[in-house]
Amino acid sequence: MTDTAVATRSFTEKLEAARRASVLLATAKADLKNSALEAIARAVVANSDRIIQANDLDLANGRENGLSTGLQDRLRLDADRLSALADAVREIVALTDPVGEVVRGSTLPNGIGLTQMRVPFGVIGAIYEARPNVTIDIAALALKSGNAVVLRGGSAAENTNRVLVDVIQGALAEAGLPVDAVQTIDEFGREGAKQLMQARGHVDVLIPRGSADLINAVVAESKVPVIETGAGVVHVFLDASADERMAVDIVHNAKVQRPSVCNALETLLVHESSASRLLPPVLARLRESGVTIHADERTSAIFADVVPATDDDWSTEYMSLDLAVRVVGGLDEAMQHIRDYSTHHTESIITNDLGNAERFLAEVDSAVVMVNASTRFTDGGEFGFGAEVGISTQKLHARGPMGLGELTSTKWVVRGSGQARG
Amino acid sequence: MTDTAVATRSFTEKLEAARRASVLLATAKADLKNSALEAIARAVVANSDRIIQANDLDLANGRENGLSTGLQDRLRLDADRLSALADAVREIVALTDPVGEVVRGSTLPNGIGLTQMRVPFGVIGAIYEARPNVTIDIAALALKSGNAVVLRGGSAAENTNRVLVDVIQGALAEAGLPVDAVQTIDEFGREGAKQLMQARGHVDVLIPRGSADLINAVVAESKVPVIETGAGVVHVFLDASADERMAVDIVHNAKVQRPSVCNALETLLVHESSASRLLPPVLARLRESGVTIHADERTSAIFADVVPATDDDWSTEYMSLDLAVRVVGGLDEAMQHIRDYSTHHTESIITNDLGNAERFLAEVDSAVVMVNASTRFTDGGEFGFGAEVGISTQKLHARGPMGLGELTSTKWVVRGSGQARG
Repeated sequence: MTDTAVATRSFTEKLEAARRASVLLATAKADLKNSALEAIARAVVANSDRIIQANDLDLANGRENGLSTGLQDRLRLDADRLSALADAVREIVALTDPVGEVVRGSTLPNGIGLTQMRVPFGVIGAIYEARPNVTIDIAALALKSGNAVVLRGGSAAENTNRVLVDVIQGALAEAGLPVDAVQTIDEFGREGAKQLMQARGHVDVLIPRGSADLINAVVAESKVPVIETGAGVVHVFLDASADERMAVDIVHNAKVQRPSVCNALETLLVHESSASRLLPPVLARLRESGVTIHADERTSAIFADVVPATDDDWSTEYMSLDLAVRVVGGLDEAMQHIRDYSTHHTESIITNDLGNAERFLAEVDSAVVMVNASTRFTDGGEFGFGAEVGISTQKLHARGPMGLGELTSTKWVVRGSGQARG
Repeated sequence: MTDTAVATRSFTEKLEAARRASVLLATAKADLKNSALEAIARAVVANSDRIIQANDLDLANGRENGLSTGLQDRLRLDADRLSALADAVREIVALTDPVGEVVRGSTLPNGIGLTQMRVPFGVIGAIYEARPNVTIDIAALALKSGNAVVLRGGSAAENTNRVLVDVIQGALAEAGLPVDAVQTIDEFGREGAKQLMQARGHVDVLIPRGSADLINAVVAESKVPVIETGAGVVHVFLDASADERMAVDIVHNAKVQRPSVCNALETLLVHESSASRLLPPVLARLRESGVTIHADERTSAIFADVVPATDDDWSTEYMSLDLAVRVVGGLDEAMQHIRDYSTHHTESIITNDLGNAERFLAEVDSAVVMVNASTRFTDGGEFGFGAEVGISTQKLHARGPMGLGELTSTKWVVRGSGQARG
């Protein structure tokens, strides 16, 4: 029944319904929002068969349309994955509700009580690719932070997403929250995504999730404010005084532990005075794990059997077992390289020199700057936020790992007793 | 000499120079930035004659081109106004430097030290109209918060702005800061403003200042993130239990004290059960001060000699001694009216009913919500921020009065001792 109702609504009607739902959601107590999340977790498992059936249809269409096996894997939902998604929703239940948190406050000289509080944005738009897990993930995060959400998933996951949204809406109704708090606009296709980007005033913030191309397209076209989660051309700089054990372990961890994510290392910079000491053990350890080294000439002179690096390597986010390596004259040249090629996500210096450590931390302009730690720590979970909303590479509103608090705005509350301005 | 150097640079060269300056400025100590601000304050006064001469030229051009007397007044600089501008710069010296402020911090279970610190955005772009005071104001605020700034003022103030920027650059050189920290792109005309809005990656944030039309145009066209300081269709709601004295004083203060600013009252809503008690004294007091009442039918029945309100009145920011007045059925109808017509700047309820006060504060979705206080308190100075960067009506990054802190981003600093992720 919900399906029919949804199909007959216009795009504008859907956004208006989202706004109405957001008004109710904004003042919903955490208990009620948590009940809805519990209901969603239960419903995702209870409706596994129905969801997998729809997902099979998308997968069959994908194979027919030549969808790569990698993308097919991202699209696939099975009982185990659905159970893991339900668990992830339950983890969000356990987090503190950011709404109502007092950020600052004071009593003004005239007796007025002033507090700045976290409030929901209102309506969040999400544009993402054919990964139906994002549908559940972003819906749960939006609900917990008191926001209504309008979803535009990839058309290759349209059948899966339609059923998922229907399941979520059923759970919302069961918990007593407005079903329009979570809606899909997949039925409007690419035109719907375009309209969403134009819907300033109707959508308060837009979150693109997926490839760099998708994010750049949304950033370029959107008139709605965007929270950008960008690519990571991530650097580690081995300083002259770097400890060998630390260098080997951190570089290996940063590159190899999970090469497909944005906080993985992409370019290693090495001080010329430590290159002959550090490069052989560091690169040998990487090679054991199957890493291909794209090396500049000075690195090649120290470590054999590498691929020569081209200019393109310095700006490439491999997301694979590849690493660009360059020998530099010192800290200043390392920081200049980072300024020239970094996407300002995460950079780490390995050093025992206090002055160099402090200069690196102060002068490198990235969302996360580190000394003697693996870049893999740039992560909401590792930072203690609980939920992973994404990692922002923009400077406005949120920078670096985002917690639930970054899905809220603030409001100033002024409590007077008849004050007029003098 | 500076003029010649400036004139031969391309738009791109100017943005690149701004980026280089921003790198130095980002780590400049507060003492150095304050010396530069003191030098600017001195130089503005010392160069009064030269500035006024250029301003006279702009004023003569303005008269020739039929610039309204109101705009001519905004454009005019004289010795008194320059002296007041210098004083305003000295007030910024006295403010705490936001750069380096630790926002959050913790020690992770693995021993990593984590701090989130305020850092400058980098390069701020400013687009504004022919008000040369903004040139000095925004340059001083940007410098204090460690940002380089690229200015595009109205062409009607081009001569004044060129001399002001030259004076500011002289003061920067005297203090030992890079002169390219403050640049004008006025010589590129409207095309320069367009390029500035496209300069994503080169400009970190764009601040439009001026009319609603200017701000809307920048918001619509810009690919650079914008901090929007929007219009104020500001409401006061007189509840059934509102105290008469409070209602009279607050409404009068909110409407009359300074009608031309964004926190001035534009629409008064009155509970039907208190309308006959409150409207006569409240509106009589306003009329004494020359306010024209644009009234709905129910108000007209209570208070004579008013202008009938049309639908347009409810969404008008008069910025003059005009007030729209409407009688509503109660709190819910008042909040619905606000949802329909407000620009979400500031709304205040006058009431003695605790439940209604709390509902209003929780449910009205505006940057500032008040109980029993004048809307004129929505102001950076009144909130204790010292400087008035503007009042944001957007929900991303900054909402409500903005202090120097809102001209910064943040950076996460991770201090490890060899940690790799498990």
